[in-house]
Amino acid sequence: MSVTAVEADVSPRDTFEGSAPPPVSVGASLLIYGASGDLTARKLIPALYVLSYEGYLDDASPIIGVARREKTDESFRDEMKEAVTKYSRCPVTDEQWDKFASRLYYRRLDIDQADQYEAFGNSVREVESAAGFDGPRVAYLATAPSLFVPSVKSLHGAGLAPAEGEGVLRVVCEKPFGTNLSSARELAASLQSLLREPQIYRIDHYLGKETVQNILLFRMGNAIFEPLLNRNHVEHVQITVAESQGMERGRAGYYDQSGATRDVLQNHVLQLLCLMGMEPPARFLGENLRDEKLKVLQALKPGNPGGINDWAVAGQYVAGSLNGEEAIGYRQEERVPSGSTRETYVAMKVAIDNWRWAGVPFYLRTGKRLPTRVTEIAVQFKQPPMQQFQTVECDGDVCEMVTARPNTLIFRIQPKEAISLRFNTKRPGMQYQIHPVTMNFGYEDAFGAKLPEAYERLLLDVIRGDNTLFTRDDELEEAWRFVDPVLEYWEGQKIEPNFYSAGSWGPNESDRLLAAAGHAWRKPGV
Amino acid sequence: MSVTAVEADVSPRDTFEGSAPPPVSVGASLLIYGASGDLTARKLIPALYVLSYEGYLDDASPIIGVARREKTDESFRDEMKEAVTKYSRCPVTDEQWDKFASRLYYRRLDIDQADQYEAFGNSVREVESAAGFDGPRVAYLATAPSLFVPSVKSLHGAGLAPAEGEGVLRVVCEKPFGTNLSSARELAASLQSLLREPQIYRIDHYLGKETVQNILLFRMGNAIFEPLLNRNHVEHVQITVAESQGMERGRAGYYDQSGATRDVLQNHVLQLLCLMGMEPPARFLGENLRDEKLKVLQALKPGNPGGINDWAVAGQYVAGSLNGEEAIGYRQEERVPSGSTRETYVAMKVAIDNWRWAGVPFYLRTGKRLPTRVTEIAVQFKQPPMQQFQTVECDGDVCEMVTARPNTLIFRIQPKEAISLRFNTKRPGMQYQIHPVTMNFGYEDAFGAKLPEAYERLLLDVIRGDNTLFTRDDELEEAWRFVDPVLEYWEGQKIEPNFYSAGSWGPNESDRLLAAAGHAWRKPGV
Repeated sequence: MSVTAVEADVSPRDTFEGSAPPPVSVGASLLIYGASGDLTARKLIPALYVLSYEGYLDDASPIIGVARREKTDESFRDEMKEAVTKYSRCPVTDEQWDKFASRLYYRRLDIDQADQYEAFGNSVREVESAAGFDGPRVAYLATAPSLFVPSVKSLHGAGLAPAEGEGVLRVVCEKPFGTNLSSARELAASLQSLLREPQIYRIDHYLGKETVQNILLFRMGNAIFEPLLNRNHVEHVQITVAESQGMERGRAGYYDQSGATRDVLQNHVLQLLCLMGMEPPARFLGENLRDEKLKVLQALKPGNPGGINDWAVAGQYVAGSLNGEEAIGYRQEERVPSGSTRETYVAMKVAIDNWRWAGVPFYLRTGKRLPTRVTEIAVQFKQPPMQQFQTVECDGDVCEMVTARPNTLIFRIQPKEAISLRFNTKRPGMQYQIHPVTMNFGYEDAFGAKLPEAYERLLLDVIRGDNTLFTRDDELEEAWRFVDPVLEYWEGQKIEPNFYSAGSWGPNESDRLLAAAGHAWRKPGV
Repeated sequence: MSVTAVEADVSPRDTFEGSAPPPVSVGASLLIYGASGDLTARKLIPALYVLSYEGYLDDASPIIGVARREKTDESFRDEMKEAVTKYSRCPVTDEQWDKFASRLYYRRLDIDQADQYEAFGNSVREVESAAGFDGPRVAYLATAPSLFVPSVKSLHGAGLAPAEGEGVLRVVCEKPFGTNLSSARELAASLQSLLREPQIYRIDHYLGKETVQNILLFRMGNAIFEPLLNRNHVEHVQITVAESQGMERGRAGYYDQSGATRDVLQNHVLQLLCLMGMEPPARFLGENLRDEKLKVLQALKPGNPGGINDWAVAGQYVAGSLNGEEAIGYRQEERVPSGSTRETYVAMKVAIDNWRWAGVPFYLRTGKRLPTRVTEIAVQFKQPPMQQFQTVECDGDVCEMVTARPNTLIFRIQPKEAISLRFNTKRPGMQYQIHPVTMNFGYEDAFGAKLPEAYERLLLDVIRGDNTLFTRDDELEEAWRFVDPVLEYWEGQKIEPNFYSAGSWGPNESDRLLAAAGHAWRKPGV
């Protein structure tokens, strides 16, 4: 018997009756370095348009695109209108667009040329004072990491980085923040010679997703889950960030230098681990939360004793098929060296060696060309201490005893953000047999509204000076400390990764990480 | 913002793939005393038809209706065909009906007339031996309680009650089992002079309902709920058995002698309390389960110190309106004495004074002419130890801070049998605000099948000799022990009940039971 539906039934008595409070608008002078780039067009400007449309962004806030290319305000606005129309979740009406576009500017700057800084600074200040704006200044570095430090230098040279106490400057950086522990430390030191740490907003867009933010509210806004989330009740936790795509156009060159560990595990996956594993903070404020996340990373240990091979597995996809279509192998992708040993998949068994989690395996994995695009955290609970019910399943005449399925709590981060809980009920009928069923809470369906994009929330947080969802330097350093030996081993010894067919759930070797403990990877559908 | 839907999403990976095992058929010779009555036509014969239709009841089992009226096998079959067509959940085809009817018999018996016993016994044995049947004999006493003992005497007189070791006889009694502690003890003693206790099946049809049975499987088939169901995590429990109807035709005479406490609270409500409150049994077997239920009843105490008024409230409905229709008061119902002080509503605050539940109020209520027909157990959990999230709700321009709703687990027994869990999630948007949502597991919808009727399960259990879902004499006695002083006080002193309007949720006085602890009755919708 297969369970085919879960009844939808939310009674109004269980909900608040009112509506959310109206938006409180905040303002900033926004400088976007890398304004010609993809991120600006696809994410940043559409997000700012939504913030403006919904009343979160003060109408007086100037938004100034900065890049090397020659461009007028008008041509920048035209380009951005096209981008917003394509990528924003709010409709682009003439009225709304005109209001938004009137604050949109473009200023050319070649950050190699220090002699341009002064004129650039004057020009920005002119825009700001024409807008009557006197709030914080936010510089978003949507550039290659090599330009982070030069960009900040240009802000200093242009007189746009006020001294402490004389104004506010916040600088947003996109990952990667270094490529290993030492380069990350170097980058941090360079930035911190120009800015104080609280001015630096290291963005990890995963943390802006509603379901990711909800992990903490779910854990700490309910009384019944937190008592279960510890070594007494949890059998293991699986964190999966699966991508179905292979190499995006033009990105293979970068990727072959980076790989799955740097690109996804060291940041997104470890951040999810932190949110799932951390203790309740003293207060629900940025530094307190970051303190708790840091403690998780500090307690992070390999999940098995022995060498790196005993707890970390690298994989690389070979030709296969995905959704009925043939897919080439990684080494056949354009710009990938033919003998590349770069990992397109990584799985780790890790442990959070503290009072709460000691002995509970955390299984982490991320990879490209997996069967589906899905990000989830699955908490599998222990079996009940007694198995009092015998359940018999039949396929025609062939019957067998089956054991109960353990309780599982799943946070699905994407797509279709949801929380679901698997438990056992009585199978209707004349025996005491149990049957697993899943209660599912679909976020977007339930709230009947399109969820905000991660960048909307994160940009607003920068503007209002809330660093809760951004990564602090010590967190970053601990994350690098943990993955560094793995990367050093794989890269230093040019270890051949374990091959897996495109469209499979990764190399067989990754199953062995779990098999010893009697566990198995989930195969999350969507 | 109101949450309007919970996404339906059960993936097959979370379920067993096979089907339930095929029915194992069992047989018995079934004697139904009171065969002319309503229960036989509406419940018993339709349930036996379904058991036969689905293959649970052995084809050789004779079913013999017994009553005082003159009737032939044929006329009994015709009457029963009409009843089965009307009340059974399986289709009545000629083939199925003929097979079923061929084993259906009627034997006249006036149980006052001992001289009829021998002929009656011979006739029953003839039917049984013609059917080639040599299994257990089940006598279902669908009669007035005053006929229980005479009926069993007739079985003895007819030679249908074999001595221990020489055959099996099981006797099923319908409630009421006495009207107070002493009459219940007397009835038990009389029955036990004729039968051994394990032969007596005291039926409480509530225990045959799927959701009621599921309480135990849910609690003991999952690892994550049991650790929460105790005084550390539960704020209070509410058990509601609400009826919207008033006096059924011709039943007011009986009801005015009985009332809400005897009719529903002493049996159904206390049994639900036992299932919710009991410890896991040593084994999942009848006597072990009954031992655990007994322990709950033994630990049952008034929920407040002081007199009976401090923890028990009687109510009686006066004229009002229900679903837009005018409804008369109890004293205006046909056959109700004009000054009757009979309670049509009872609410109690009770405590299970043991290690698990000490200090947790259990609020019990049942009544007639309440706004809707609903039976549910609602477990309300404590609030999280910290309230870290500020939630603001607005009605237009008027905003106020609201506190989080506590987690609630609800077993809805009828109608629309379901389990639901209320918890808090992040309200999508730019603040950390929590919003209560409900995950709901609808039993019938989820399994895509009509649930078995309670009587199907219970009749089958009697036939197979499983007394798990039946009430043992010591349980019954403890339940009477608990309610007896209350009834004695109300009836002995002719205490005027608290009046409530038909269509309301009972008298205001019942709110006071909860108010002192800062609790409030739920208003369950359907």
